[in-house]
Amino acid sequence: MNQLLQISACAVTLLLSTSFMAQGQVKEDFVPSTKNHPGKEYPMVNSQGYARFKVDAPEAKSVTVTLGLGGSGGTKLEKQADGSWMGTTAGPMDEGFHYYHLIVDDGTFNDPGTLNYFGSCRWESGIEIPAHDRDFYALKDVPHGNVQQVLFNSPSTGTHQRAFVYTPPEYGKSNKKYPVLYLQHGWGEDETAWSSQGHANLIMDNLIAEGKIDPFIIVMTYGLTNNVKFGTIDSFDAKEFEKLLIDELIPYIDANFNTIPDKDHRAMAGLSMGGVETKLITTRRPEVFGYYGLLSGGTYAPEDLKDSGVKLAFISCGSKENPEGVTAAAKALKDAGYNAVSYVSPGTAHEFLTWRRSLYQLAPMLFK
Amino acid sequence: MNQLLQISACAVTLLLSTSFMAQGQVKEDFVPSTKNHPGKEYPMVNSQGYARFKVDAPEAKSVTVTLGLGGSGGTKLEKQADGSWMGTTAGPMDEGFHYYHLIVDDGTFNDPGTLNYFGSCRWESGIEIPAHDRDFYALKDVPHGNVQQVLFNSPSTGTHQRAFVYTPPEYGKSNKKYPVLYLQHGWGEDETAWSSQGHANLIMDNLIAEGKIDPFIIVMTYGLTNNVKFGTIDSFDAKEFEKLLIDELIPYIDANFNTIPDKDHRAMAGLSMGGVETKLITTRRPEVFGYYGLLSGGTYAPEDLKDSGVKLAFISCGSKENPEGVTAAAKALKDAGYNAVSYVSPGTAHEFLTWRRSLYQLAPMLFK
Repeated sequence: MNQLLQISACAVTLLLSTSFMAQGQVKEDFVPSTKNHPGKEYPMVNSQGYARFKVDAPEAKSVTVTLGLGGSGGTKLEKQADGSWMGTTAGPMDEGFHYYHLIVDDGTFNDPGTLNYFGSCRWESGIEIPAHDRDFYALKDVPHGNVQQVLFNSPSTGTHQRAFVYTPPEYGKSNKKYPVLYLQHGWGEDETAWSSQGHANLIMDNLIAEGKIDPFIIVMTYGLTNNVKFGTIDSFDAKEFEKLLIDELIPYIDANFNTIPDKDHRAMAGLSMGGVETKLITTRRPEVFGYYGLLSGGTYAPEDLKDSGVKLAFISCGSKENPEGVTAAAKALKDAGYNAVSYVSPGTAHEFLTWRRSLYQLAPMLFK
Repeated sequence: MNQLLQISACAVTLLLSTSFMAQGQVKEDFVPSTKNHPGKEYPMVNSQGYARFKVDAPEAKSVTVTLGLGGSGGTKLEKQADGSWMGTTAGPMDEGFHYYHLIVDDGTFNDPGTLNYFGSCRWESGIEIPAHDRDFYALKDVPHGNVQQVLFNSPSTGTHQRAFVYTPPEYGKSNKKYPVLYLQHGWGEDETAWSSQGHANLIMDNLIAEGKIDPFIIVMTYGLTNNVKFGTIDSFDAKEFEKLLIDELIPYIDANFNTIPDKDHRAMAGLSMGGVETKLITTRRPEVFGYYGLLSGGTYAPEDLKDSGVKLAFISCGSKENPEGVTAAAKALKDAGYNAVSYVSPGTAHEFLTWRRSLYQLAPMLFK
């Protein structure tokens, strides 16, 4: 047998065994995704992380789900005898939350089975692959803080902008004043992200109930990210958002909520492009924020923090992103004498489980 | 010419002229609906109330919009040279908000051009035909109250239920206590309806800014309506919701917000099936609420209010619903000595403009 034949035989064996394993391994313990529409059975997820989709469109020529294994181009559904279209991902998906949509006859639609989540500059379908550590963002029988929609006047953008404000369970029952974390979403998302797919409120409720943090307020607003074309992010300077945040939103929050309105009780953090904004704004305006967090959103070098008086620089990402860069950046900051902490979310990429976990790590370190 | 021929000729003339009028009358001043996805051009609406739809699905066999003139079965879109599907309603739609969805190749999908609104037990597409009186629910440069998401413990349903609480702009700046309106959605909707498609918060902000009402709180929760089959509503007794509302939600609100916790400062109102709930619960528990509102949700007879101590019974509907019934019911109540008020929304049916207008009428009469 020559070498080529050997390789071919190997490849065939490998393909067959992979196929056999994939088939044999799919456990039939599928349950509806927790992000489904009330009462909808599909999409479903199993205990291994496979996702299974079912869409009714009897007269369609083709239905594809944009979610699938990396590089697979999504999951093509097959027509069933009852006129529906079904399919299962070719393998287990990463734990956590994923955006996706359907391609039906070359048109873009959402899966009617799921709730919608604002990402990729549109309300997308969403699915949740149960994470092994999902308890930290679960809805539990503990006291719950509120998430308030506020509409604040923004002369610089010529309109009223919306923010969501998390207040801890005890808020308002005394005149106690609280620190504030300004927490930004990423490109294509908006002010709804952190309290919807991010579960920031439940993460805080649980941390407070377990006595792991002193309560604080979180403010989430739209970072003016979505008119920026993706290829031009390098030239993005966040100057418009800096004005909105520092001249308009922060004064509104300090005037209307029980805050401690100083640098040592004010933090800024953001995910992805929200991290880019955090770095740009904290380095230009070090007098405003005392604690910084970049979640899959770049790193600080020691020279960025010179004379900043920063109390904590938190830098995180998923293990499938740039973990070495994040770890090395935090080490360089620590070597230069800064209080820097890195965190790498195991087994996740540039998605929301990375950021939920990052917030869970960051929150207990703030305002100490 | 015999009679039959005469009639036929008339019919042809009528058809031609109707067609000509419809064609000739459609003003080409279409603008994007205010309920669209950020940046999306379609669906569009014109100044006459026509709606125009455009959906990309190059390989689809058929695309129909469920919205159209009454009895028309919706609006069938026609395939365009660029692969998109387009169509315009056969005539002007009623002013205000309408739910709809698409039928693409016999499958149910939402229009990717619009935001989603929970109605008909699903997140539906939504479109807004500009109303001539839309100013009263417009977002204006006035002080804005907040809408807070609260999660309250509900032992009777075995979970934490969600409510949205509107607090007026001045709320929390002093220890002032406020009356509370408990305001219910209709069948197929949920706790998001009144502050989303209902614009209850903006209606209140504007009424307060104009000095037309004394500020009060509004609480909106899920009325446990959607597991009730539509044909069985006559046997619906709202006993489960009564327990949740009176034993769980009201004590939570009174413990966590600055309320005046008595009957004379507590109102209940609801639209459609929320009106049915309001009637059932207010008549069984007259000691809890002092002001009642049925919005397209039935009427009270004088015997329903016997010994209730009710301060106001407000009954409303759209002019295309049962205006005579509503007006007659209020007259009978007044003749029996009750403070009853009827309101008929001009030119609207069983839809949200009727209910926005009803809230605008009701709010100034509460807690007097």
